[in-house]
Amino acid sequence: MDKWYEKSGADGDVVISTRIRLARNLSEFPFPCKLQKKGADAVINLVKEAVLSSNSQLSSNNFKYIDTQKLDKITLISLVEKHLLSPDFVSDKIEKSLILSENESISIMINEEDHVRLQVMSQGFDLEKTFEIADSLDSLLDEKLSFAFDDKLGYLTQCPTNLGTGMRASLMLHLPGLKQSGVMEKVSANLLKLGLTMRGIYGEGSEPQADMYQLSNQVTLGLSEKTTINNLKDIAKQIILQERTVRSEMAKHIETIDFIHRAIGVLKNARLISTNEFMKLISAVRLGVALGEIKGVSLDTINFLMIEAQPAMLSKFANKDLTAIEKEQKRADLIREIL
Amino acid sequence: MDKWYEKSGADGDVVISTRIRLARNLSEFPFPCKLQKKGADAVINLVKEAVLSSNSQLSSNNFKYIDTQKLDKITLISLVEKHLLSPDFVSDKIEKSLILSENESISIMINEEDHVRLQVMSQGFDLEKTFEIADSLDSLLDEKLSFAFDDKLGYLTQCPTNLGTGMRASLMLHLPGLKQSGVMEKVSANLLKLGLTMRGIYGEGSEPQADMYQLSNQVTLGLSEKTTINNLKDIAKQIILQERTVRSEMAKHIETIDFIHRAIGVLKNARLISTNEFMKLISAVRLGVALGEIKGVSLDTINFLMIEAQPAMLSKFANKDLTAIEKEQKRADLIREIL
Repeated sequence: MDKWYEKSGADGDVVISTRIRLARNLSEFPFPCKLQKKGADAVINLVKEAVLSSNSQLSSNNFKYIDTQKLDKITLISLVEKHLLSPDFVSDKIEKSLILSENESISIMINEEDHVRLQVMSQGFDLEKTFEIADSLDSLLDEKLSFAFDDKLGYLTQCPTNLGTGMRASLMLHLPGLKQSGVMEKVSANLLKLGLTMRGIYGEGSEPQADMYQLSNQVTLGLSEKTTINNLKDIAKQIILQERTVRSEMAKHIETIDFIHRAIGVLKNARLISTNEFMKLISAVRLGVALGEIKGVSLDTINFLMIEAQPAMLSKFANKDLTAIEKEQKRADLIREIL
Repeated sequence: MDKWYEKSGADGDVVISTRIRLARNLSEFPFPCKLQKKGADAVINLVKEAVLSSNSQLSSNNFKYIDTQKLDKITLISLVEKHLLSPDFVSDKIEKSLILSENESISIMINEEDHVRLQVMSQGFDLEKTFEIADSLDSLLDEKLSFAFDDKLGYLTQCPTNLGTGMRASLMLHLPGLKQSGVMEKVSANLLKLGLTMRGIYGEGSEPQADMYQLSNQVTLGLSEKTTINNLKDIAKQIILQERTVRSEMAKHIETIDFIHRAIGVLKNARLISTNEFMKLISAVRLGVALGEIKGVSLDTINFLMIEAQPAMLSKFANKDLTAIEKEQKRADLIREIL
């Protein structure tokens, strides 16, 4: 267990992880949507060389290049489940590649929506440090690659919503309290006015699973990275506080306590569990651990399980394509083993 | 724990208990439905005296007389939950009484449907011994009381369905296999042709709970007690065999195993459990114990819980009238403590 997602961090009761993503493009190539095979290969080679030759300066990361064309579908989907690849990356057809740090906290997608999508993830609530890592890696690449940059607009990106900083700073939040109290829609609406959005865990358009929400900046133009991060941080602090308040209120009700203990009871005993049911139960257990109702299970364990019990991860672990019922069985076995 | 229902007996995987009930009336009084207060009191006194004066000959039973008029409603209902009183006994208005043996295996209701309803219960599948106890007690009472008896018809009872032997021999069966395989209706229909009936656990008209069924003789006229019991015994053996066959088949399916383990998981962890949910879950757990899937829980424990977790028993134990949610909470607490 030495992957970034196998731990919990600051404010881990509510904040699962912090993510900084930078979108960059090489000035001498058209955007990926207009790129031919030859150009795509050239972009891959340039970025790959720039990153791997920076390895000495980023020795702790020990990057490895992954030729995603050669990966089978299960492995690709398992990388999506770990948030190392975007769902679009898997479905699109153009030549792409992925560079991953050893602990999987840094991923660089090549030829996704932009030529370079640099992503850094950390456990818990840790925007500054996560940005610092992304920023220093960006600086190193900037020395070796010619990024498309406009003095007035900032970094040029395929989609105008990323124009400017090209940065998306996100926090993965566990909000069972706000969800259950029915205020999520109101919270989301208010966030939009503040230039932030709240989405499901696999990004834009995805449904919230297990009461997990991704809070991120919407605006990339006209604000510095520092301002954006401070803004996100301040608002996240308020949401965390609200969530905790609702939780303490919920904890006074025997129905909540019952709900939590039933969830751990089923997870520890079931022999078949679907992804959907798992996500609902693990959310209840996470709440139970955060409230101190469930002892002997750590947030680390839960974060780990939430990744490892995903469908493609199970298939990858079993080293074969599993049927639906086999997946449910493997998932239940894994959960019982871990809990 | 020294009550009869706190143990399991022969063929305890399927047969929870054996019951023999004899209906008798005193020849010099009208049937209870036509009885006035004075007559009812006289019947109570005569039967009470006959039983209590037999205590020396039945020393192991140590009977005690219970003036049911003086019992509060909760205590009365808890006696129904233990099958020591019939639901009718509680709802009717005429003067009644109850005589109970110390371990509660023998109960004598006075002025229920008949003047005397003598009932003996044993754990597991044990028709002969249970009948023997009932028969010897009947003989003792017969010496002291003048039972209404017709040489041609046999014992006279208020309801003609009891005429003759006045005996109802019953087995309480746990039949989750036959129930789930959807053959119960067919089985019941066939039993009728054989002079037997299959009913819910609180007798005629009651719904089957927790896959529990009461198998008993329907015919009391024209057959001796011995023939009736042998008939019931032979057919019960076949049903037990069928149930076991279906269970072994079910046990091959991961869905059954999952269902069983989820049930124990919820029972061991929930903080609120309704009677209805409890009965469903305990049935699954009973099946799991019988199949050897659940270790560390005995059939004795389950039999005990099935009585103790009933609503009035919980109120009686708490020594006050509990609200619905308090009952659910007390039930869950008791279950966690026992399991």
